[in-house]
This record gives sequence, C-alpha cells and structure tokens, in this order.
Amino acid sequence: MTNPSAYERLAARFRLVATIGECASMLGWDASAVMPIGGGAARGDQLAVLAVLRHQHLIAPQVEGDLAAAEATGPWEAANLKLMRHAYVRAKALPEELVQAFARASSDSEKVWRVARKDADFRIVQPHLAEVLRLTRETAQALSGAIGLSPYDALMDGYQKGVGADDVAPVFAAYEIFLSQTLPEVEAYQAGQPEPVRPSGPFPIAAQEGLCRDLAQRLGLDFEHARLDQSAHPFSGGTPTDVRITTRYVEDDFASAILAVVHETGHALYERGLPSVYARLPVGEAAGMAMHESQSLIIEMQAFRSDAFLGWLGGWLHATFGGAPEPYRLENLGRLWRRVQRSLIRVDADELTYPAHVILRFRLERAMIAGDLTVADLPGAWNDGLQSLLGIKPSDDAQGCLQDIHWYDGAFGYFPSYTLGAMSAAQLMQAARDATPDLDEAFARGDLLPLVTWLRTHVHGVGSRLDFNSILQQATGRKLDPLAFQTHLRRRYLSA
Amino acid sequence: MTNPSAYERLAARFRLVATIGECASMLGWDASAVMPIGGGAARGDQLAVLAVLRHQHLIAPQVEGDLAAAEATGPWEAANLKLMRHAYVRAKALPEELVQAFARASSDSEKVWRVARKDADFRIVQPHLAEVLRLTRETAQALSGAIGLSPYDALMDGYQKGVGADDVAPVFAAYEIFLSQTLPEVEAYQAGQPEPVRPSGPFPIAAQEGLCRDLAQRLGLDFEHARLDQSAHPFSGGTPTDVRITTRYVEDDFASAILAVVHETGHALYERGLPSVYARLPVGEAAGMAMHESQSLIIEMQAFRSDAFLGWLGGWLHATFGGAPEPYRLENLGRLWRRVQRSLIRVDADELTYPAHVILRFRLERAMIAGDLTVADLPGAWNDGLQSLLGIKPSDDAQGCLQDIHWYDGAFGYFPSYTLGAMSAAQLMQAARDATPDLDEAFARGDLLPLVTWLRTHVHGVGSRLDFNSILQQATGRKLDPLAFQTHLRRRYLSA
Repeated sequence: MTNPSAYERLAARFRLVATIGECASMLGWDASAVMPIGGGAARGDQLAVLAVLRHQHLIAPQVEGDLAAAEATGPWEAANLKLMRHAYVRAKALPEELVQAFARASSDSEKVWRVARKDADFRIVQPHLAEVLRLTRETAQALSGAIGLSPYDALMDGYQKGVGADDVAPVFAAYEIFLSQTLPEVEAYQAGQPEPVRPSGPFPIAAQEGLCRDLAQRLGLDFEHARLDQSAHPFSGGTPTDVRITTRYVEDDFASAILAVVHETGHALYERGLPSVYARLPVGEAAGMAMHESQSLIIEMQAFRSDAFLGWLGGWLHATFGGAPEPYRLENLGRLWRRVQRSLIRVDADELTYPAHVILRFRLERAMIAGDLTVADLPGAWNDGLQSLLGIKPSDDAQGCLQDIHWYDGAFGYFPSYTLGAMSAAQLMQAARDATPDLDEAFARGDLLPLVTWLRTHVHGVGSRLDFNSILQQATGRKLDPLAFQTHLRRRYLSA
Repeated sequence: MTNPSAYERLAARFRLVATIGECASMLGWDASAVMPIGGGAARGDQLAVLAVLRHQHLIAPQVEGDLAAAEATGPWEAANLKLMRHAYVRAKALPEELVQAFARASSDSEKVWRVARKDADFRIVQPHLAEVLRLTRETAQALSGAIGLSPYDALMDGYQKGVGADDVAPVFAAYEIFLSQTLPEVEAYQAGQPEPVRPSGPFPIAAQEGLCRDLAQRLGLDFEHARLDQSAHPFSGGTPTDVRITTRYVEDDFASAILAVVHETGHALYERGLPSVYARLPVGEAAGMAMHESQSLIIEMQAFRSDAFLGWLGGWLHATFGGAPEPYRLENLGRLWRRVQRSLIRVDADELTYPAHVILRFRLERAMIAGDLTVADLPGAWNDGLQSLLGIKPSDDAQGCLQDIHWYDGAFGYFPSYTLGAMSAAQLMQAARDATPDLDEAFARGDLLPLVTWLRTHVHGVGSRLDFNSILQQATGRKLDPLAFQTHLRRRYLSA
C-alpha cells in the first residue's frame, strides 16, 4: 500500500468533515420534524459540538501543507482543490472564539425572536439582533480580509459563491422598474377575470398525504432514499442518499400541502442528482443556495404551475377528491394558484411580487452590514421600503421586520438567493424547452421526467465543478439573464 | 476566571464524549425507526465517524495526566472519577486498528446474518461469525490485561460492571434445577385451567396507538421529553431528555403493542430519572444493562402483569375496544398473558422459561470466548443445549443459533443481563412492596406512580454512583438474591 498523496489526504479529511456535517443535517431534520420540545436544549449542545468538530478538522495543522502540495489530476479534482482551499481560508479566517460567540448569540437571539414575533414586540429582540449584527460585521470583516471580497460579498459568498452585491444591485434595480410597470397591468388584467373558486373540502389528511407522495414520486423522487413528513414550516434536508422533505396539511385546503411538496421535491431532486462519485467532497455539493432555489422553483413555479401540467393535474385531483368538477378546471386552477396580490408576508407572496420582498431585505441588510442602518432604525426603514416597493405598509412589526427568522438567526447575505433562483429557473426553463421540444406535451400527460432528466445533466450532475454563472452559461448559453424571468412573468400573467 | 482543575477538565471532556454519543444514539434511533433503506450506507459511515471521534477524545494525550492529578470533592465526584479512569483504561487498551477491524467485521457479519436467518442457512454466515469471534477474543484478551478480569468477565464488564461469570454461573445452575422441578408443575397446573380466550378484533391501529400513549403517560412518561414510534423490533433509545420508544402494531391483537410499550417505558423511565445534575458524566449514566433490564421488567412483568393491575386494565381495555366482556376479565387476561410454554424463540418466551434461553447462550458464549467451542460446532451445541434445558429442539438454525442478532453483531457477554435483570426486578419489587404497603391498591386503580416514585429514589436517581449489587444492597438490604425471583414465579404460576 503506497502512502496517500496530499490530495488524497485532503479528500479523506473533507469526507470526514462532510460526514460530521451529515450527522448535523439529520439531527437538524429531527429537531424540526419529530423532536419532542424537551429535547431542544440537548440538541443545541449536540449541534454545537458537531460544528466545533467540523471546524477543528477543517483547520487542522496538516491542512495548510497538504493544500500547498496537492496536485489535481483532472478538471473535477482541480475544481475540488480550489473549493477546498477556499473553505480552508474561510474557516481559518475566523477565530474559534468568534465562531462560538456568534453561534451563542444567534441561538439566543432566535429564541427571543420567537417570542417577539408572537407578541409583535420588536423591542425585546432589538439588543439581541444588535449583538448578532455586531458579530456578523466582525465575521464579515475577517472573511473580507482573507478572501478579498467586500464584507457583504464575503457573507454572500457563504451562500452563493461567485455572485456579489454589484451583480445583484443592478438586476434588482431593473426588476423594481419592471415591477412598477407590470404590477398595475397585471392587477388590471386580473380584475377583468372571474374570481377563482377554491375546491371545497374537507380533504382528509391521509388522502392528501397519499397524493403528495404520489406527486413526489411522479416528479422522480425515490422513497428508498427519501422521506416525507410534517413540520410547521416545510423544508428539505437530510443527505443526498437520504433526503427528507416536509410539508403541512390543513383539512380544508390541499393546495398548501401539495405546493410545498412540489417545491421541496425540487430541492430534493437536486441533492439526489449530485455526482455520487464525488460525494462528501466540495465539488460534489450543490452549487450554492441560489442554484438550489432555482431547482425548487423550476419544478414548482415553472413546470408545476404551467398550463400544460395544471391541465393534467386538475383531472387527477378531481379523480382523487371528487365533488364539483368546475374548481378543478385549468382556467380556475390557474387563477387560483397564480394569483398576484400585494402582500406583507414574503413566504405568502406570488411569483411577481416576491422579488420586491427580497429587494427590500437585500437593501436593508447591505446597509446594516455597511454600518449605514442601525438595528434601532430597522422597523421604520422596513415599513418605508415596503411602502415604496409595493405601496403597502405593515400594521405591526410581526407583519414587518419580525416576519423572517434569517437575520435573528445570523443569516445575512442569504436573501438574494431566492430571487436569483427564481430568475435562473426561468432562464433554465427556456433552455430546457428549446432543447426538448415536446416538454409541454409531457407536462400535459403529468410527466415531468423529461425536464428532470435535462436538469440532471445540466445542473444536478455538475455539482460544484462550475460556479453559478458558469452552470447557466453552459446550460443556457449565457450567464444570468434576468430578462428570461420578465418574459416568463409577462407571458404568464398578461396573456393567459 | 480561574483555570479549570484537572477534574473539571475531565468532566468537560467526558461531557463532550457523551454529547457525541448522544448524536450516535439519535442517529441509531433514526436508522431503526424512520430511515429509508437507501440511507443505510451513509448512516454506517456517520456512526463509524462518531465512534472514532469518541474514542479519540477519550484517549487524548492530556487525559492520563488529568486522571492522575484529579481530586474528587465528594462521593459523586469520587465515583465519577473512578468510572472515568475505568473508561479510559478500557479505551486505551484497544488499538484503533482493532476497534476499526471489529466494527467492520461486526457490520459485515450482521448484514450476512440477516440473509442467513431468513434462509435458515448458518453456513453462509459461519466465516463471518468466526471472524467476529476471533476479534472479540482479541479484544477480550486486551481488556483482560488492562482491567485485571478474565477475558469473558472483561466483556461482561462492558455491559454490566461488577458482575462476572463466577457470580452468574452458580445462580444459573441453581435456576436450572429450579426450572426442572417447577416447569412440569406449572404445566400440570395450567392443564387443569380453562384455555384463555383472545379478545377478538380487529383493533384499529390508531386506537391501539392512543392506548399505548395513554398507558405510557399513566406510567409516568412525559411526552414533552419522549416519542413513541413504530419499528420492526421494539426498542428504547434516544437520550435522557429525549427518550424514544417504539412498538409494533398488528390489527388483530393489541397485546404485542401494549406489552412492548410497557416494557420500553420501563427503560425510558430509568433514563428520564437519571440524576440530571450529572448528565453526560459517567456517574450520571444508568448502572449497566442488567439494572436497565430490571427497570423494564419490574414495570412489565412485576407490576403490569400483577393481578391488581390486570384487574384494572381489563376494564379499561374493554371500555376502549368494546365487544364481549369475558376476554377482558382478570382470570382470562392472567391466563392469556402469563402463559408458560416451552418455546424455541427467546424473545417469545414466558417469564419462567426465558432464563433457560439465557443460560444456554451464557454457556455457549463463555465456551466460545475460552476457545472450548468453535463456531462450526455451534449449531449442534445449541440444539443439544436447548434439548437438555427445555426438552425441545429447533427444526432449523433460524429457530436455533441464528435467532438473535447479538453475537453476529459482536455482542458477547450481554446475554446474562436479561436474567440478572429479571431476578433483580423481583427482588426490587419485594422491597418496594415492603416499603409501600398500599402499592397493590394503587395498581388496582391503574396507578403505577407509587412504584415509579420508589424506583426513582432507589434506582434511577442513583445513576452509576453505586454498582449493580450496591444498588440492590441499598434498596433491598441485600445484594442479588435469586430466590426472590423463584418466590415470585411459584406464587404467580402455582397459586393463582
């Protein structure tokens, strides 16, 4: 047996670090999906221990020398090595005390936030958020020096490598103009349409669950490597060979359950389709959160809510639930599930106004990281910003700056991923349609597999060998092109 | 802030090691209760990584000096320090290559065993078991030298400290004689009784599950810190603040579900009752597997199947399921759930003949560890042994030496715990009755809490501050006294 090369030693180390991460991922699923409430304190300790172990193994003394000595034998290995170097530099830039202080502060802040949101009382969480922000700025500063990006970009880099604020800001500015023109047009168009009718239930939970399971399988999810459970907030988690998705059921409306399952299945298919030969290596991971969101949204927004698929789905749903056929007709389902409405809450927003919520958060968090906006001024800035973007104003902070967990949990720089995902989903869909002429015919038979197959080749199977824009370039012939999304929106909402 | 003392450094280290163990415990629950089959390979890697991390942190270079320097400030700390030293010496005795080879061999062997048992084909697993045995003997030898016990006792020490083969052998020999006299008597007595009648179903799974949950709560289990799920083989797992028990349901008989829940709740109550101030320290853990089994059996066998409790239970079950009242009467439930029958399968055995299955395994595994019995000769020795103990013979090895996972999974020295548990349960019950005169009146109202309260004080809350026999000594006035079990059995099965 020959001695392992520096590259092989690194690969073994990163597999170890990733395997510890898998443990954390499964325990995170457990905490959100099944854990009894009394297990929370111990779970916090378990996850903190796993985080420290990962960090320690990532920055162990041997790593630096191995990274300097390692040689790549091909393009995958070269990309892998580059990502390993990047991960090391990021981890090494952060002193362990800062990592621990940040973890403790976000955990405390998140707990208080739950109360604050419930009681619509920003003041009680304000000092906690201020402390999280202080530590986030310190983190951003440390990362900035190490990786040579601006502090805010250094945070974004943790969620979506290769895209920075200077890429995003003009795209968002252009969308704001597009929205200011298009939203009134769509509202006027919608006003001329009949009111949608909601299928009337009750819809037994067991029947909904069976339907959700069938739907996920129809999209290509294999339950030998997946689970579907319930949780307060739907999410996808787990590991590539054991993905866990969740949804929530209400008896009088099946829409929330199936729409969440379809969205989370998009995420799950991405994880399932990652190149297994590079499992547990950086190059075998998903190419960032924006790309991840593109994979849930291309399934949920582009394919599932297309005329072709909804046409098939209506019949299938009616066969399952019975009752009057009218609410299940395509025109009605389209009006019901593609309804545009200015609203206060991001997670309830439609496809057209959703980016406004993201743009608001992007601008506010960028200002907070730059030191141009204090936590004390956040509620007012939020309300003014939403007024300016959508012409509506929250009546309290629970409907405003308390609605999302992200900042309170220490996630600054994440929000742009949602809209970058929506935009690239539209762009990828255009390319998939061009490459697969009978795609909509397949949708009309309830068959999304031709799309999923195309995604497996052009996105899932690429892992992180290419970055966000290079994946788009290779799959669609150009890097992020926000116009594809605008074209999609105008076609869907103004010429139905 | 002063520097931590050697004792405090050790405590922090053992808490870290225990927290890694908690991660493994939760992932073990997940694997048995909910994991999709395709997650198995990755889960094996995850558990192996956690095992290696625990081992590394336990035998880190600083530990030896800290153990030498540490001073205890009280009896709990003294017991803790002694247990830490013992854990260190055991871990240090085993070279990492042996630990890894053993883990790999048992994992391989267990997989092949599943096929072998299904096909009743011992030959395919024979070489795997031989390899596991070889590595187990090597392990036993290494531990023996380090902790000064015989090789077999060194293995037993891993499951139940403070009890060795020389303690067990005479107790088992005496039981064999007792059984040879008592079993025919009980069979003759039973033959003179009416045949028991099984309540006739179907019993909807949802109703059974509600019943199981109510029952567990009635026994004192708090679902803010517990879950009840399904699995192929009922078990209890998780952590002290998040215990996980499982059962299995069949539509035409509720007995298997509720008896399993009652048994596993006994285990869970022990974990819940451990001294939380010493959580994650050796002294705060359960006092071994025999003591653990005593806590499940005192609930299941001693209390739940007592006349007093069954009398109440029958009425409660009948109120739940309806139908004819006769099968739910005490006399019938007693005959149904306390039926003695010579049988081939340990896990299906009644209370009286169960120890025969354990005695057989104890003798065989002791001979295998001593090198007096080869794996090739195991099936024959098994069949002869069962013939001699119970007068019956398996028709194939699936009913014989392939029935239990233990040896194939590398667990030698565990089996005696079952019968030590049954015996100490009888002894503890006698003491609890003496100390709590109206215990059976409470049972007759469906109330087991006076018993559980007594156990919390005399067993659960003691953690590992005392060893097996010292806990019995303090709780009952004497160390293990096998006659209490014989008295219990003759009273229950010959004078009903």
